[in-house]
Amino acid sequence: MGFDLGFLVGKMGSTTLATSEYSSVVSMNLFVALLCACIVIGHLLEENRWMNESITALVIGLCTGVVILLASGGTSSHLLVFSEDLFFIYLLPPIIFNAGFQVKKKQFFRNFMTIVLFGAVGTVISFTIISFGATKIFTKMNISDLELGDYLAIGAIFSATDSVCTLQVLNQDQTPLLYSLVFGEGVVNDATSVVIFNAVQNFDLSQITTAVAFQLIGNFFYLFITSTLLGAGTGLLSAYVIKKLYFGRHSTDREVAIMILMAYLSYMLAELFYLSGILTVFFCGIVMSHYTWHNVTEKSRVTTKHAFATLSFIAELFIFLYVGMDALDLEKWKFVKDSPGTSVEVSAILLGFVLVGRAAFVFPLSFLSNLTKKAHHEKIDFRQQVLIWWAGLMRGAVSMALAYNQFTRKGHTTFTGNAIMITSTITVVLFSTMVFGLITQPLVRLLLPAPKTLNRMISSEPTSPKSFTVPLLGNGQDSEADFGQHVPRPSSLRMLLSTPSHTVHHYWRKFDNAFMRPVFGGRGFVPFIPGSPTDQSVHQSQQHLVAEEPTRNQEC
Amino acid sequence: MGFDLGFLVGKMGSTTLATSEYSSVVSMNLFVALLCACIVIGHLLEENRWMNESITALVIGLCTGVVILLASGGTSSHLLVFSEDLFFIYLLPPIIFNAGFQVKKKQFFRNFMTIVLFGAVGTVISFTIISFGATKIFTKMNISDLELGDYLAIGAIFSATDSVCTLQVLNQDQTPLLYSLVFGEGVVNDATSVVIFNAVQNFDLSQITTAVAFQLIGNFFYLFITSTLLGAGTGLLSAYVIKKLYFGRHSTDREVAIMILMAYLSYMLAELFYLSGILTVFFCGIVMSHYTWHNVTEKSRVTTKHAFATLSFIAELFIFLYVGMDALDLEKWKFVKDSPGTSVEVSAILLGFVLVGRAAFVFPLSFLSNLTKKAHHEKIDFRQQVLIWWAGLMRGAVSMALAYNQFTRKGHTTFTGNAIMITSTITVVLFSTMVFGLITQPLVRLLLPAPKTLNRMISSEPTSPKSFTVPLLGNGQDSEADFGQHVPRPSSLRMLLSTPSHTVHHYWRKFDNAFMRPVFGGRGFVPFIPGSPTDQSVHQSQQHLVAEEPTRNQEC
Repeated sequence: MGFDLGFLVGKMGSTTLATSEYSSVVSMNLFVALLCACIVIGHLLEENRWMNESITALVIGLCTGVVILLASGGTSSHLLVFSEDLFFIYLLPPIIFNAGFQVKKKQFFRNFMTIVLFGAVGTVISFTIISFGATKIFTKMNISDLELGDYLAIGAIFSATDSVCTLQVLNQDQTPLLYSLVFGEGVVNDATSVVIFNAVQNFDLSQITTAVAFQLIGNFFYLFITSTLLGAGTGLLSAYVIKKLYFGRHSTDREVAIMILMAYLSYMLAELFYLSGILTVFFCGIVMSHYTWHNVTEKSRVTTKHAFATLSFIAELFIFLYVGMDALDLEKWKFVKDSPGTSVEVSAILLGFVLVGRAAFVFPLSFLSNLTKKAHHEKIDFRQQVLIWWAGLMRGAVSMALAYNQFTRKGHTTFTGNAIMITSTITVVLFSTMVFGLITQPLVRLLLPAPKTLNRMISSEPTSPKSFTVPLLGNGQDSEADFGQHVPRPSSLRMLLSTPSHTVHHYWRKFDNAFMRPVFGGRGFVPFIPGSPTDQSVHQSQQHLVAEEPTRNQEC
Repeated sequence: MGFDLGFLVGKMGSTTLATSEYSSVVSMNLFVALLCACIVIGHLLEENRWMNESITALVIGLCTGVVILLASGGTSSHLLVFSEDLFFIYLLPPIIFNAGFQVKKKQFFRNFMTIVLFGAVGTVISFTIISFGATKIFTKMNISDLELGDYLAIGAIFSATDSVCTLQVLNQDQTPLLYSLVFGEGVVNDATSVVIFNAVQNFDLSQITTAVAFQLIGNFFYLFITSTLLGAGTGLLSAYVIKKLYFGRHSTDREVAIMILMAYLSYMLAELFYLSGILTVFFCGIVMSHYTWHNVTEKSRVTTKHAFATLSFIAELFIFLYVGMDALDLEKWKFVKDSPGTSVEVSAILLGFVLVGRAAFVFPLSFLSNLTKKAHHEKIDFRQQVLIWWAGLMRGAVSMALAYNQFTRKGHTTFTGNAIMITSTITVVLFSTMVFGLITQPLVRLLLPAPKTLNRMISSEPTSPKSFTVPLLGNGQDSEADFGQHVPRPSSLRMLLSTPSHTVHHYWRKFDNAFMRPVFGGRGFVPFIPGSPTDQSVHQSQQHLVAEEPTRNQEC
């Protein structure tokens, strides 16, 4: 049907609908074509160790921005109107869900306390330093119109780690500890950001008392725990529903649909209850990969694994492409024309604060974290600390969205101060993503020259990283071989009991095997029914027989 | 992040943004939860042969509508504001693409001329009858405000077959001929609808000359051919890109992303050039399943097959759920309160026209089609004609969207005539989907009592329906067995040459094997590279060896 198409994202003004709708079709075409170009060029540049797909998308976005700017005679550089909605409702959930779905669970939970320490306390430290620094320096400079709330918002904006970029820059298989620390921190960071941002906007911050501070801390814990529980609950519900309903007659499309919808539902429920959707959907992903994923057919497993990864991949490209394109928007730069020096100065100062603010918590908190660990191989050595510091420096779409939220609400960047903050955010995002992002990979190779040894040292059990990549997609024989290979591994059991955190893990496994898995399913816990219409019943029965061995080789 | 969420679909009015955004989060939660409920309940009712998932969704939508109506004190019955954009940009493309992707190509192309005849000439006949009848009867009744353009639009609205519902009601494996005829007709019907609708809105129809008529016919052929070529071209481009670029190093996520984006691009390009997006994306799906799909990894094949099916499934449920919910919208019924009799009368008359208009082309055109066929088993017998007539009676979201487009543009249903047409459309859609839809399955069983014999009779080669369901997901051995089983089949070759349409098919195969497949890939034509990082290289090499046999067993 060729009539009356309008692109939903572009909020249409009072201009003629027909033309604006047609122009949005043009935009969408260009945007989708550019996404294809990003994938193809990204693939061609894969050999180049310095580039990654997000930087490719950023550069392509910038180039397209220049072309559109020239073609439109300097009026506009971007195709779509960026909306927070688009970002927070459509693009972010698949990215974070996929991260939870594919995360190495054992690695993540083993470092859980460190991650929470970095994500919560670290973000507060970073926020305090940036806010304090901004208040001191920007009031001395000639930037008017900024109030206390704005300075605090600046702290929140530039403390928001870009989880998306972390996923792109760090490699889970290459540096599993770093990945789980930096990415996990990014997820917890979100819960902290929500608390801080709400606090900045709602509380009367001119008089911070001990009571208010405690209230904030309580608020954080409430948010963290409820979000986690909500995510885990939705994930468990999906596992239970699929296990009960699809008993004996599986339907791949329905299973996949249920998983997608439930994952999305968890995110939207969190938004409904003013919780952290990112935390919720992340834990929903973890629970789904631990239970639900094992209750579905072989085909559903392959489909969900790759469909979620693909959705996340497209969403990431979309964000970077857009950020690149949006950077050249003249509207925003127009207001800082009179004082280009100030904008550059502010950006440089903010970048400095980001560097200092992150250093101020990574090194002390790593020291603290190391104090609690007994085993030498579990401590974070100095090189790793440098990498953790560096890999979390990127600021991305979350910072952009926060900045738009804070500085375009009142007056739409007509105040010089607001305009400067917007352009500075863009500059910091572009600079940190491109420069810091480009340097991260070489830095990893420089500081961790033998990633293989390190990898083996950190994740002592090859089941953990392998479990998500090898046995799931292999056929029955593969799966059996994998199981058989790892069952007689007494050393891993000894390992498990050597440190306190491992004991927790041990008890969790016991609890999981005794109570959770019989109810919610999970690997090897889906009963085999002879003559059920599943695809490869032979395979299933094999898996079933194997699964009756003591499930010592479970993942988490 | 828990701030400033707004649902994109709900076009926010001038009311307070904060509350309307929160209420849209509530709506989305309910809607996603309802979709989950539809899947679960649909699965539970699967045993019931009268129900199908779309009717379940309709009924759940109606019930929810009642609940919301009561809860909101009679102000509103639906959660989301239905927009044509949502339907035509997000929901329809995956449904139609998936239909093309999973269609039995041989069956479809063997009946190609009949399908085009039904879709083009049939739609014109139906349109003429309904428009003429509406003009005659409605002018006699007391329905004011309707002009000639409106009557013609009524013809177009009620000639638009609901392809989505056809997919739900007919079973491709059970009744392949009926499915390909009715569904194929629905796709071509779309191209015709575009021409007619544009004609109604743009041409001066008060004086139809021969020249204008020829212009319209020329327009149709232009639209049909360019849309088809665009779809095929985009599909071939995706095949070529993946074959060239991913030579030797496959990446599942990138492949899947490229396929999704290119499919969507084909639809959006068609909209850009004012072509029929439905036709384009349908042919893009066919070409992708013939070439691109065979160039990707085993995992990508499983993922795309099920991911596309799942997206289509969710989109269908979404549409039916919404239509059910929207049916109780009081706004629309308010205007016909004074004349409830008229509305019922108009609905009944329109339903009658739909029945007559379809009968008026199905039986004569089937007769014509039978004249061109020599073999007895290829003719459409009377029982099948009745089923074709019946299965295409459903009117669905396309009709709704057209009606909204025509009758809410000017005056927003404040004219009684417009309001009556909107409510009548809703009534016809609900009635036809639920009553006709419910009766279709029993009617199929009644009129075609031995579907197995019929099935074998119609699709003489079991390769065709099997090819999409069996060998693709099996392992190497299966695939080999499948190939080996069908290679020595001289009877099928003799069949191929027995009738003219089969000769075309034969030449197409020769052309495909000689020119197309070496360039664009396709089954067995992806070169095997030893040591390539594909998953199951053993499997691939097996497939490769088998594929070097004469490819007589190709699908189309």
